Amino acid sequence: MQNSFSEIPINAERIQADIESISRFTDPDVPFTRRAFSPQYLESRAWLAMQFKNAGLSVKVDAAGNLIGQMGPESKSVLMMGSHTDTVQGGGRFDGILGVMAALEVARALNESSIELNHSLEIVDFVCEEPTIVNLSPLGSRIMAGDVTITEVSKAITPFGQSLIDAITDLGGNPSQLNTAVREPGSIAGYLELHIEQAPVLEREKLSVGVVTAIAAPCRAKVSIKGSADHAGATMMNERKDALAAAAELILLVEKITTSPLMSPDGVGTVGWLENFPNMANVIPGEVNLTVEIRSTQAAPLVEAMNEIDQALDEISERRGLEVQIEWQHVESPVTLPLQMQEAVSQACTSLGFPVKKMPSRASHDAARLAPIFPAGMIFIRCKEGRSHASEEWASLEDIADGARVLAQSLLNLDSKAT
Amino acid sequence: MQNSFSEIPINAERIQADIESISRFTDPDVPFTRRAFSPQYLESRAWLAMQFKNAGLSVKVDAAGNLIGQMGPESKSVLMMGSHTDTVQGGGRFDGILGVMAALEVARALNESSIELNHSLEIVDFVCEEPTIVNLSPLGSRIMAGDVTITEVSKAITPFGQSLIDAITDLGGNPSQLNTAVREPGSIAGYLELHIEQAPVLEREKLSVGVVTAIAAPCRAKVSIKGSADHAGATMMNERKDALAAAAELILLVEKITTSPLMSPDGVGTVGWLENFPNMANVIPGEVNLTVEIRSTQAAPLVEAMNEIDQALDEISERRGLEVQIEWQHVESPVTLPLQMQEAVSQACTSLGFPVKKMPSRASHDAARLAPIFPAGMIFIRCKEGRSHASEEWASLEDIADGARVLAQSLLNLDSKAT
Repeated sequence: MQNSFSEIPINAERIQADIESISRFTDPDVPFTRRAFSPQYLESRAWLAMQFKNAGLSVKVDAAGNLIGQMGPESKSVLMMGSHTDTVQGGGRFDGILGVMAALEVARALNESSIELNHSLEIVDFVCEEPTIVNLSPLGSRIMAGDVTITEVSKAITPFGQSLIDAITDLGGNPSQLNTAVREPGSIAGYLELHIEQAPVLEREKLSVGVVTAIAAPCRAKVSIKGSADHAGATMMNERKDALAAAAELILLVEKITTSPLMSPDGVGTVGWLENFPNMANVIPGEVNLTVEIRSTQAAPLVEAMNEIDQALDEISERRGLEVQIEWQHVESPVTLPLQMQEAVSQACTSLGFPVKKMPSRASHDAARLAPIFPAGMIFIRCKEGRSHASEEWASLEDIADGARVLAQSLLNLDSKAT
Repeated sequence: MQNSFSEIPINAERIQADIESISRFTDPDVPFTRRAFSPQYLESRAWLAMQFKNAGLSVKVDAAGNLIGQMGPESKSVLMMGSHTDTVQGGGRFDGILGVMAALEVARALNESSIELNHSLEIVDFVCEEPTIVNLSPLGSRIMAGDVTITEVSKAITPFGQSLIDAITDLGGNPSQLNTAVREPGSIAGYLELHIEQAPVLEREKLSVGVVTAIAAPCRAKVSIKGSADHAGATMMNERKDALAAAAELILLVEKITTSPLMSPDGVGTVGWLENFPNMANVIPGEVNLTVEIRSTQAAPLVEAMNEIDQALDEISERRGLEVQIEWQHVESPVTLPLQMQEAVSQACTSLGFPVKKMPSRASHDAARLAPIFPAGMIFIRCKEGRSHASEEWASLEDIADGARVLAQSLLNLDSKAT
């Protein structure tokens, strides 16, 4: 069947059932927690491979440990759909998981309807999207994009104390052949990822589905501020080297820069982690360490914001007589999703009677790491109260159905155009 | 001997030796740490009572557990000198200890020189000046001033798990007769306390001795800020309820108020303790708890500053849509030391050839709790780099000698005038 506008018969209840099923593979003490390379993750992967197989896909694990289900002749140009099934600590049932389960349902529905695509279809569960391996995650999509070296992999250790080499091998990967997991630019005609929004924009606008235009990049710095831990009663204000007061200036500066015209409307900045020493009511803080994270869908404002933060810290440290160090440990580039991918999703929305709501993603996704080498597109669905990375993370069955229908129709649109 | 301007022959080396001796009664794991009611404190008290006795004092422990050495006929009006020998965790050899050991040396020198005062002389080691018993410390001086009830004492537990009643009893006190430790207003002609400055003012001005004019009061609040812990990438700036950003505003506000004309020059304000939840780089802080401490030697600015902080917090919480609670858990009143006590010390400085450096104390002392009922005076000596409540706390032998000489001469001045 070519260039069809008749709908693939999606069964959203099966997606929901798969999401519920995999959620039972969890850290017994922390609901909905299935960190990459944990025992629960390994068990869930075996279960998921069986689900792929039952849906009529031929299943393999690539050298990186990505689980891939394929249908249609392998010789054809590839269309890919997927996301990830690992979670952060404290969980979430939908982040990533929805994208894998909806892709699986689309493949299952295609097989059941005996619909044949012009392309080979691959459904991918990317390994370790969440920041489990410091400086390497999202691992599977980065390896597929040729962005991680075997040297980096061979040095890394999982939070469970295992070498990353062994952990990938346990998943069925083959780190010694890591290059076989890398896809050549042009080898994939398009990649589609369905995801919960993780923000309340769709909910506020009473929409179930959104077309993602760009993916913001996170840039993260560790800041160390060293002052002097003196007696809080006896040290006059002009004699102090208060590390926490300097940190307070930085916290408000990050807020100011990210709400300024430079980074508006979709730039965000956060000081999420802070430790204060000696942390006693009657001692002036002598040392503060904290993280600064800024994100934008635009590269230039991100770079300028990093520079402004660096300069402001210099000024704060000089004025207050403190020692300040800032290290940007993690710098990503924002991604604009190709217009033809936005268009494939927008047309799907229109065909199905949904308004076309274009919106950036402020969280990062596997799609962002694949985008430099393949055309990548993303579809968002409404997320209850914007809550994510938490046990409260929720999407309704109706919205899952809408999202999966748009995913399926977008796939058909791509299949009819891209070759 | 009456109204003498001939000097009492102080031997500062004996003071230094006593300071060194008592410093050996320490928590074995934390140098110079002898918290009130610890085993080391009990041992040191037995040693100190013997030192009092050897100096010719008649020794008793009052009902509150204060160690008192007396000389001269008890019927006469009393002059008192003292301080405390307990320390904070992490110590200090001089804070409090200097005042007790210098008073002891003055008494010893008076006895050795057969100098008789017009007054009964009492040397007091006040029990538990440091904040070991929450909301009751400084305990001994407060009980003597009639500021602690037996009900409060009977509810308290020491950090070592003992009831305060039992702990005071173990020191030789008699909590069931607590009222016998209370002194009547007018019963003490004067109280003198020698103390290290705990700040670098004397050091900076190259002076060994200062005349304390007033003692700042600490007012301490616990603040709780509740926002919403959302995804740091996906939650737009105008959707956030960032508890740490609100805390940053408060931290800078405290700094601003305490450096404003309202509280200058000797007001101080500190946010020393802060805890941030969930404290993750990619999650917006949902809850922050912190302490605010402000101190001033003037009552009116303190009250106004507390009001300004309360009002500003209301404004911050309303503007940011957060829940904020502030509770001023500990509010003391600042004390101006009586002019006749300042004068007795100033004249002693002049007699001995020291410049008269008048200065407030920004740390609190037993003298502050006695001041409402007796005339209290204080003498400061230089403190290395202003460091206190730390193992680095240091005063030189020369400065100890200068301070003890001023203490002795101030005593003689009071003895010749007050009756």
